[in-house]
Amino acid sequence: MALVVMKFGGSSVADADKIKYVAGKIVAKSKAGNKVVVVVSAPGDTTDNLLEMAGKITSNPPSREMDMLLSTGEMISISLLAMAIDSVGSRVISMTGPQAGISADADHTRAKIKKINQKKVKDQLAKNNIVIVAGFQALNPNGDITTLGRGGSDLTAVALAAALEADSCEIYSDVEGVYTTDPRIVKDARKIDCVSYDEMLEMAGSGAQVLQSRSVEVAKKFGVEIHSRSTFNENQGTIITSEEKIRRKQMEDLLISGITFDKNQVKFTIIDLPDLPGVAAKIFGRLAEIGVNVDMIIQSAAVDKKNDISFTVSKQNMKKTQVELDRTIPEFKATSTSVICDEHIAKVSIIGIGMKSNPGVAAQMFEVLYKKGINIEMISTSEIKISCIVDEVDIVKAVEELHKSFGLSKKNQENLL
Amino acid sequence: MALVVMKFGGSSVADADKIKYVAGKIVAKSKAGNKVVVVVSAPGDTTDNLLEMAGKITSNPPSREMDMLLSTGEMISISLLAMAIDSVGSRVISMTGPQAGISADADHTRAKIKKINQKKVKDQLAKNNIVIVAGFQALNPNGDITTLGRGGSDLTAVALAAALEADSCEIYSDVEGVYTTDPRIVKDARKIDCVSYDEMLEMAGSGAQVLQSRSVEVAKKFGVEIHSRSTFNENQGTIITSEEKIRRKQMEDLLISGITFDKNQVKFTIIDLPDLPGVAAKIFGRLAEIGVNVDMIIQSAAVDKKNDISFTVSKQNMKKTQVELDRTIPEFKATSTSVICDEHIAKVSIIGIGMKSNPGVAAQMFEVLYKKGINIEMISTSEIKISCIVDEVDIVKAVEELHKSFGLSKKNQENLL
Repeated sequence: MALVVMKFGGSSVADADKIKYVAGKIVAKSKAGNKVVVVVSAPGDTTDNLLEMAGKITSNPPSREMDMLLSTGEMISISLLAMAIDSVGSRVISMTGPQAGISADADHTRAKIKKINQKKVKDQLAKNNIVIVAGFQALNPNGDITTLGRGGSDLTAVALAAALEADSCEIYSDVEGVYTTDPRIVKDARKIDCVSYDEMLEMAGSGAQVLQSRSVEVAKKFGVEIHSRSTFNENQGTIITSEEKIRRKQMEDLLISGITFDKNQVKFTIIDLPDLPGVAAKIFGRLAEIGVNVDMIIQSAAVDKKNDISFTVSKQNMKKTQVELDRTIPEFKATSTSVICDEHIAKVSIIGIGMKSNPGVAAQMFEVLYKKGINIEMISTSEIKISCIVDEVDIVKAVEELHKSFGLSKKNQENLL
Repeated sequence: MALVVMKFGGSSVADADKIKYVAGKIVAKSKAGNKVVVVVSAPGDTTDNLLEMAGKITSNPPSREMDMLLSTGEMISISLLAMAIDSVGSRVISMTGPQAGISADADHTRAKIKKINQKKVKDQLAKNNIVIVAGFQALNPNGDITTLGRGGSDLTAVALAAALEADSCEIYSDVEGVYTTDPRIVKDARKIDCVSYDEMLEMAGSGAQVLQSRSVEVAKKFGVEIHSRSTFNENQGTIITSEEKIRRKQMEDLLISGITFDKNQVKFTIIDLPDLPGVAAKIFGRLAEIGVNVDMIIQSAAVDKKNDISFTVSKQNMKKTQVELDRTIPEFKATSTSVICDEHIAKVSIIGIGMKSNPGVAAQMFEVLYKKGINIEMISTSEIKISCIVDEVDIVKAVEELHKSFGLSKKNQENLL
């Protein structure tokens, strides 16, 4: 008898009809001969409504009380879902994060899971119950409720699957899985059958929003195979697993698994910065202090004791960064130094474990963009990812052409098989 | 330093402005040099909304899951109220029923408090925190959340006051306390300064809805003095305490403390019932089995081996009762037996510990009603209460005249002092 962890997001339990529908899927899984543990998020916009209530009381709520408030959302989901399952005659029990034995540290609103006492859920499974666990929440060492941060229900599901040594961990959402690129942009985007943990992490970091990154890290650490699939049909989704397993499954290695893009970036360029030790450290140190996450950084070779430095930050951080640079730059007493900010850029990334053993991938990417007259403003690379900053107006064309060139389109894929 | 338990109902925390207002009252109580424990209900119509959600899923939810669902309402109140208190700079912590050490039996949706581990709240008070406790909920022996039934937050407050040996237990609501009768009906109804536990219980049982009966029983058992008062002003409300304390406080004993009435009753009369042993037992046993609570019962003396029996039930149970009588009566095979149902009745009750030592009270009540031409259809008495069933159209006149005659009007009261 297999043990399956199923996770449903908030949009899957947003109203009574959806809850009944999801209950049907769960009961079917159970009747097919599986032991079933379900993790569920707060219904629809419940969390946003609770945040709004708190906002009317104070702009600076204590994080412990915030967690007490937010944890109610998942308690509503689990109890309603358990009622729906009970009403069709299956044995079921709901459990809060603390009741399910999930312990976390005391870092309220973004706690880290420390331990799962898997006996609590196992005891209920042994009683032939379907077990519905509240995602996103845990008990901290003070006996307080903590929450795990945005996307925390994915983390609950993966951590439970690891602790229970589940046979599979199915993450349901309103998309069918992980795509070669955004299907809203590129019509012949294709659902990926398998993707490695590292590829998934690079994708999440460069624009794709299917799974919370921390949950993928935990899945990698404990070897939990994730099946990302649709709540609303029975199609096979995407398996997120180890590189080794993928190599065994796939006869034909694809160079590239997916293409992501991110229009939410701005580029800063500091011109004629004095070429002295510690200048870059000072600038990026200051930005880190005010909570600005810098993505790509390029420094040109020094000419005439002067440097140009370019870097990108998210659009939300543009103003903050501008203000900080205006304060920091004069400290260098180099009057010719100036700052240029470019909002009209975008980042395109190609991701794939295949590029590890294929040195020509970067060249192919640059060639494709060059042939279409798309100028590359910045480049950064990791072992399994290459990112380029291009002009915002070129981003769709860039994604489409790369998608075609690396054989990711549906048609191309069929030809390969 | 006094220890005060303050309890606020759902209407007192229905929105952000009300929560801030209540927070102000709590902080003022704390700054006046008291240790403060607050018990709070779910905000406004939250509980009704949760019940409606459950109703859309199933008409027969498991009571354990219902309790999981309903307990979220108070968690919302306590966290928001704690945020409001924190935002004005006072130390505060919220606690769920289980966190506050409140244990109950496993009787979901109407659990009874078994024990309070008062150390949990005391530890927080010792850290100079105002402690906000979720009313209505507790932990059962299985580690599940249970709820205490309608009005359960009053019970939480009284039980906590008993366990903590609090100096006072203040129950805040939208009325100023307990009245001699309903001020919406009788203009010169007067707020009562002091009322005994037993009087309060009789009043609650005969129409007045200020405090949950079980909480009054617990207060009596543990000698907790309750102060029922208004959320929206600083006026002295009504003290509910022991008879002995009232006797010491009141120079002048009033015969009657209050007059209640109940229009939500119907009278059934069974005519020509065979006068055989076990007939009444059978009829009322059947009604008890189907959950019909019978209030007053009168059986006439047997004439010609036949009896008439009259009894009252609440209007909600009228149909159920009718159906059951139609089924039961033919079993007696007495063809002359018939049933009359009268919906147009009402019950008026006079309540007061003073009547214990004053034999003329009943006679005075009957005299007043007789003089106003009001016919008494049924009478029942307890040690401190006399109830009469009268025609529905006479009920306001009955209450007004009795209120005057027993000296409860404001004017009369002033004359006495």
